[in-house]
Amino acid sequence: MANNQKFDADHELVFDVAWDMALSCISTGSLHWCIVQKERVWNLRSVEELKSKEFWFHDAQRTLFEKLSTPPNQYVAKNVIFFLGDGMSVPTVTASRIFEGQLRGVVGERNRLEFEKFNFVGLSKTYCVNKQVSDSACTASAYLSGIKANYLTIGVTPNVQVNDCAGARLPQNRLSSIAAWAMKGRKSAGVVTTTRITHASPAGVYAHTSNRDFESDFDVNSFGENASKCPDIAQQLIDGDVGQRLRVILGGGTSKFLPNTEKDVYGNQGQRLDGRNLIDEWQRSKPGNARVVFNRTDLLANDARSTDFLFGLFNASHLAYHLDDSIDTPTLAEMTESAINVLSRDPEGYFLFVEGGRIDHAHHETKAKKALDETVQFSNAIKKARLLTNPWDTLIVVTADHGHTVSISGYPDVNNSIAGLNSEFSDVDSKPYATLSYANGPEFQKFYQSKDGVVERVDLTTSDIGDKDARYPHGVPMSEETHGGGDVAVYAHGPWAHLFTGVYEQNTIPFMMGYASCLGPGMTYCDLQPKVSYNP
Amino acid sequence: MANNQKFDADHELVFDVAWDMALSCISTGSLHWCIVQKERVWNLRSVEELKSKEFWFHDAQRTLFEKLSTPPNQYVAKNVIFFLGDGMSVPTVTASRIFEGQLRGVVGERNRLEFEKFNFVGLSKTYCVNKQVSDSACTASAYLSGIKANYLTIGVTPNVQVNDCAGARLPQNRLSSIAAWAMKGRKSAGVVTTTRITHASPAGVYAHTSNRDFESDFDVNSFGENASKCPDIAQQLIDGDVGQRLRVILGGGTSKFLPNTEKDVYGNQGQRLDGRNLIDEWQRSKPGNARVVFNRTDLLANDARSTDFLFGLFNASHLAYHLDDSIDTPTLAEMTESAINVLSRDPEGYFLFVEGGRIDHAHHETKAKKALDETVQFSNAIKKARLLTNPWDTLIVVTADHGHTVSISGYPDVNNSIAGLNSEFSDVDSKPYATLSYANGPEFQKFYQSKDGVVERVDLTTSDIGDKDARYPHGVPMSEETHGGGDVAVYAHGPWAHLFTGVYEQNTIPFMMGYASCLGPGMTYCDLQPKVSYNP
Repeated sequence: MANNQKFDADHELVFDVAWDMALSCISTGSLHWCIVQKERVWNLRSVEELKSKEFWFHDAQRTLFEKLSTPPNQYVAKNVIFFLGDGMSVPTVTASRIFEGQLRGVVGERNRLEFEKFNFVGLSKTYCVNKQVSDSACTASAYLSGIKANYLTIGVTPNVQVNDCAGARLPQNRLSSIAAWAMKGRKSAGVVTTTRITHASPAGVYAHTSNRDFESDFDVNSFGENASKCPDIAQQLIDGDVGQRLRVILGGGTSKFLPNTEKDVYGNQGQRLDGRNLIDEWQRSKPGNARVVFNRTDLLANDARSTDFLFGLFNASHLAYHLDDSIDTPTLAEMTESAINVLSRDPEGYFLFVEGGRIDHAHHETKAKKALDETVQFSNAIKKARLLTNPWDTLIVVTADHGHTVSISGYPDVNNSIAGLNSEFSDVDSKPYATLSYANGPEFQKFYQSKDGVVERVDLTTSDIGDKDARYPHGVPMSEETHGGGDVAVYAHGPWAHLFTGVYEQNTIPFMMGYASCLGPGMTYCDLQPKVSYNP
Repeated sequence: MANNQKFDADHELVFDVAWDMALSCISTGSLHWCIVQKERVWNLRSVEELKSKEFWFHDAQRTLFEKLSTPPNQYVAKNVIFFLGDGMSVPTVTASRIFEGQLRGVVGERNRLEFEKFNFVGLSKTYCVNKQVSDSACTASAYLSGIKANYLTIGVTPNVQVNDCAGARLPQNRLSSIAAWAMKGRKSAGVVTTTRITHASPAGVYAHTSNRDFESDFDVNSFGENASKCPDIAQQLIDGDVGQRLRVILGGGTSKFLPNTEKDVYGNQGQRLDGRNLIDEWQRSKPGNARVVFNRTDLLANDARSTDFLFGLFNASHLAYHLDDSIDTPTLAEMTESAINVLSRDPEGYFLFVEGGRIDHAHHETKAKKALDETVQFSNAIKKARLLTNPWDTLIVVTADHGHTVSISGYPDVNNSIAGLNSEFSDVDSKPYATLSYANGPEFQKFYQSKDGVVERVDLTTSDIGDKDARYPHGVPMSEETHGGGDVAVYAHGPWAHLFTGVYEQNTIPFMMGYASCLGPGMTYCDLQPKVSYNP
């Protein structure tokens, strides 16, 4: 027996010890071989490889070795990038991991999304002040400003009830987000999303409103409120103390920024009643080079080195789903790259908020395949951010605002298409069922039928399950599928990422980011010890 | 402004700094006040307390302070206690936390189950070698022996297919569990469960079988196999190399141990065809004081100080659900306490496996309230274990083997009964719906009806939702609700608990426990550095 084997006296396990291999990787400097080897074990071409006890033993040893060889990063975070997968519940991540692997032709179960490679994971409690299951508005106050608030409100304290315009204007009721903290700390800040830039999650970066639906003055009016007393979200992005200082703004929603007498470059009418063209106003108000872009071509052609401010709106409303292949629309990864290129010009560092906002929308429509695909796009954006930043000075935090009701059910075989029908059938009605389904959704009559007065399921054999626009089965009929209340995961990498493990209230997240980057009103690294920057 | 306030120049946040308070707790030694204060913030009597920004700020600072003041525990783990919540998915934990708080009359959302107080959390990928969604058999091989295996098999390598009796007998196909590693390391080991002690999860501690259903020789025969060539699980517990050395065995399942010519103390007929009374054989074969108990009274009366071996079987099959108030049945916490009392007599330490096994059963029946209640019982057992052990020398790991399809849906108000009807109604059929529901389950016709040929939901207004035996709504009809494939959480406390964060394959878990306790065939703490024990 070779010396690098450990021998179990029960004769039940005899293995090479993987960490000998890992150590030899390091000591012999054969780094290329080791990287190839590592990529191989995460990208299995065949399920046959799973059928070996040696594979699993070595794999566990490798994981353990990686954990042991990663000391906590206790530098100060110069940059913080916060990635928000809207509605990205734990089963959404599991299913998307499998989906992405299957797209690439490897064993999906074995695959890892980019943020699943991070060393630190925690669980976030997502309820709000008045709701057991929350929405994207009150949660934005929690994960960006550190205070839980009321359902449907954004950037205001729990003193403000929904539609309380007067309350939302009181200074003592306004919350400051970590973007504000960053700018106060002489850093730059930016916001990127696949939704309208005035939608609930990105609005949490810069707005204070008693109703998430107050996106334009038209919207405010439609609630019977006076926009002059109840500033709309688009206007706050242009005029607001935080909004006007954002270096990068990328997303959708031209309609919220243009008067109803003008059309955007796509030919869509603006919505504003106040006659303001907020896009032009934004550009005129900025010192230095302020660039406005409306399509992917112009975004990619833009030279970040000469850009001081960047404003991109790529649709009248939300950006198209990635699977819908919209013409000249940037991916989330491309927007993230542009944002980082502009922001990283600031020698003091930056805070960047990036939202994969349409994971949530696809779930609401029970279009599970699109939800998985948007999660893959989200993962790709994180991969891009990792390539462009240094983990010794950049903290990356990835989480969701709330869950959804999607589950992965039954006992499908390994490698069964995750967005398809289960490899098993119902043992009651003998019909196939989808592996993914929801608690509720908008197409109840599509999935159930009455036969001789008895209710039965519609046979899915010839259904569209697996198509990008297929609605997935559900129980309760609702106009749209609802959120789910289960804890969501938090994944962290970089300085002080080790703080992000454990179970905690969602509003702890910005204070942990603030601790790492010496920002905000809470205790920070710089309060407690001399600041140590990464300095190669 | 007081000196202990931090002032935000934006005038948006002015707060006392919570960590000043925490530091003063420590420096002034007013520990009692601090503990009272800490308990208070986790046990809110009223939702009114959630409506203050100061509450959330202080709360986040307190969490951050706790994280910063908890250095990683790098002692060797003398003892390892592994708690397995069978089927305890992430939403199950969230809902059970709320349920337990509501039982105690505090704000449930704010509540924490015992293991949610642990500092370290990770996510475990639960798929098996041949199934995307796994069962309790193949997962037991992963989390106890470190090797993923085939669906329905226990304690054998992936070379063994289901029902391959010959394959399961080959020495090279048998896996050794961490209980075997512990005994090889001169420690004691024990197993506790609320299910039959021969059920899949506990069997992973001591058995090697190609089919989880081979619990007795009668069961083996009913599959057309010869029990002499295919040793049943009960027999392996008594005769097997690991089973015969277990110090503590507590659970249910007398029927699997008694001949069909005998009845147990409850009057239930044994099942065995081989005429063996394995309970008597167990007692006769043991050196020292070997105690057998059949009810709670005898268990609690037993003197652990004079007990060398303890075997308790409290039902012919599984233990009754806690909510069913079975006469003279111990709780999981009581069994855990008895086990620790016996095992802690070993100066070398121990490995203990404790399963809350009926969380899974209740979910399979779509009896959500019982699933939550069993999770609370499981949490109570962990609380007992923490009271009886020292976190400097005892590693406690809590996880689930696989998920379920339960979700928490809609937008219920805070404090709404988690096991009841949602505070909102469907906006399509205007009927109430349950906050908890499943993707599939056994009572399809109970929830849907046909009216004039159109399918509609049954009105739940006067339903039994909220009762302990209520079935909860679901989509697909199945004889029993299925498992779910989402990642499950891992919670860890004690030596090397910090290894358990991140996302990893389920089979990494025993190797991390083995690392901490210097056990098993993988790399361990003792391989890499001189062993440092906690020595007050």
